[in-house]
Amino acid sequence: MSSRIRLSDVAQHAQVSTATVSRVLNGKPDVSEKTRHAVLAALDMLGYERPEAMRARAGGLIGMIVPELSNPIFTLYAQEIERLLVGRGYMPLLCTQSPGGITEDEYVRILLERHVDGIVFISGLHADTEANPVRYHQLSDTPYVLINGANPKIDAPSFDCDDRYAVTQAVNHLVSLGHSRIGLLTGPQRFAPTQAKVDGFRSAMAAVLPDETPAIATSLFTIEGGQAAARSLIAQGCTGIIAASDLMALGAVRQSRALGLRVPHDVSIVGFDDSPLMAFTDPPLTTVRQPVSRISQAAVSTLIQLISGSEADTSSLTFAPELLVRSSTAPAHEGKTRG
Amino acid sequence: MSSRIRLSDVAQHAQVSTATVSRVLNGKPDVSEKTRHAVLAALDMLGYERPEAMRARAGGLIGMIVPELSNPIFTLYAQEIERLLVGRGYMPLLCTQSPGGITEDEYVRILLERHVDGIVFISGLHADTEANPVRYHQLSDTPYVLINGANPKIDAPSFDCDDRYAVTQAVNHLVSLGHSRIGLLTGPQRFAPTQAKVDGFRSAMAAVLPDETPAIATSLFTIEGGQAAARSLIAQGCTGIIAASDLMALGAVRQSRALGLRVPHDVSIVGFDDSPLMAFTDPPLTTVRQPVSRISQAAVSTLIQLISGSEADTSSLTFAPELLVRSSTAPAHEGKTRG
Repeated sequence: MSSRIRLSDVAQHAQVSTATVSRVLNGKPDVSEKTRHAVLAALDMLGYERPEAMRARAGGLIGMIVPELSNPIFTLYAQEIERLLVGRGYMPLLCTQSPGGITEDEYVRILLERHVDGIVFISGLHADTEANPVRYHQLSDTPYVLINGANPKIDAPSFDCDDRYAVTQAVNHLVSLGHSRIGLLTGPQRFAPTQAKVDGFRSAMAAVLPDETPAIATSLFTIEGGQAAARSLIAQGCTGIIAASDLMALGAVRQSRALGLRVPHDVSIVGFDDSPLMAFTDPPLTTVRQPVSRISQAAVSTLIQLISGSEADTSSLTFAPELLVRSSTAPAHEGKTRG
Repeated sequence: MSSRIRLSDVAQHAQVSTATVSRVLNGKPDVSEKTRHAVLAALDMLGYERPEAMRARAGGLIGMIVPELSNPIFTLYAQEIERLLVGRGYMPLLCTQSPGGITEDEYVRILLERHVDGIVFISGLHADTEANPVRYHQLSDTPYVLINGANPKIDAPSFDCDDRYAVTQAVNHLVSLGHSRIGLLTGPQRFAPTQAKVDGFRSAMAAVLPDETPAIATSLFTIEGGQAAARSLIAQGCTGIIAASDLMALGAVRQSRALGLRVPHDVSIVGFDDSPLMAFTDPPLTTVRQPVSRISQAAVSTLIQLISGSEADTSSLTFAPELLVRSSTAPAHEGKTRG
């Protein structure tokens, strides 16, 4: 045990006794897994090195493929899945993509060469309705699970945020505030989650505002994409905008202000994801939160079942997101519509 | 070539002719590397699959070890280094840490077992003055470079943001606005960047405000850490706060408001890092930007020189950060100090 670790600091942080900290640090057996983890986490948070006796044995490798980390929701998934895999004794390898960088197919080839035990695909090519699903059929010897973008042509467990329900919640929230000109700001239509959001938007609008023509603008899933597409929705007189990602929502806020409009006084904006830091934006963003933690838990549990050769308990599951009302939405008021 | 790719979309996005796009897609040789990359990036941005002919051959593996992705500055480094490595034909493996998860030493062991060509350590244990540097001496057969936290006990190229200069810039900015009670909010003192910031703070304060006692509060490098430590600086009457990370600065904003103070009217706050989205926070954060791109370029170039068996052109370099003035700092005014 390192002489530099102050037991009292660790004990206070982990909310256990110094005797318990000492037992954990010396690898004594009479400690619950929960307590052991709390002490481990306290050591890490306080920046101490772990003593040799308590270093975990790493198990097999698991690949995690994410689209890109510039969207913080993917970082959140990566962190959560990493935490869960490590807790089960696996070693995660995070494969991130960027424009012009390594593709999903290349990552898969490299992961297979390195004999990974399994792969988690987060918003991968499975979500692209125009991508060839055969690439996944070829993976049959390596267990894998899919997150967001369920694809009926791929026979693998899939864990998805309910995009239709997300948009329905956003529409109902804006309608309850008195908005009737409501627009959807979304990404390329080739992606399954986009299609689900568009479907959900049309259905929800037809149910509550049957006389309105739903306004839809598509662009890239980025701040700049949201900024560009919001211009067309605002030109169509929308006072309520539902964005398919928080980054697009921030772009819509920027565009509204560039046009001299106030958010939420003149334009109400709802995001999607509840990425980290959205409570700190100007204004704090009303958004529909993806249940990242529950989706990740289900995906990791299922993947580990598949790796251990069991039948998976679940094939595919859809998870309900929840609306978080912050300060980017407000009651509509008369006479502010721009035609 | 996939029949689904619309050449005109790609050409417009890449700002080249459709004939050029076609040549790139078909793997024709008469195309510059810059143009090829622009077309590749446009395809990726637009969500198209790459045709077989233009898929890059991946080279050796390079490990990238970062502390955790919940701080967006590390995500930014990871993205930038990944992009650079891929551009040079290497395959990056991103190893992220989280409290209670896999440690740096375990990642290193696994990376060495997988025969990586090199390793980039970003704010690793090398930056911890109490960690044993012997772990790095044992790495001598595998080239590696260090980012942030240069350590005289480790003989490896190191690329660092100039923390002393960062704090000096922040102090001078606050003094120019009329602040005299200025506090530094920083992380655990065991870390080299913290020590450099504290040194820089004391020197800068001694130079411009020799009669003031510099106020320093330490905590964890998180929003909650910043929030807790800001309370003590505010209680000491500070009207200007310099935080050692943007997340700590956001915590200081939150704490100021919880105490009924306005930012920047009552308290001016300067962050450090310029992490993504800091222009979108409330208020948009004045911060000192780490030159992530230049540091990453130098680190990757040097690592690749070492891998190819050359002597590295540079041993270690320090990079000057730059102050970005946004809206979390304002002129001090009389009578707002709380003693």
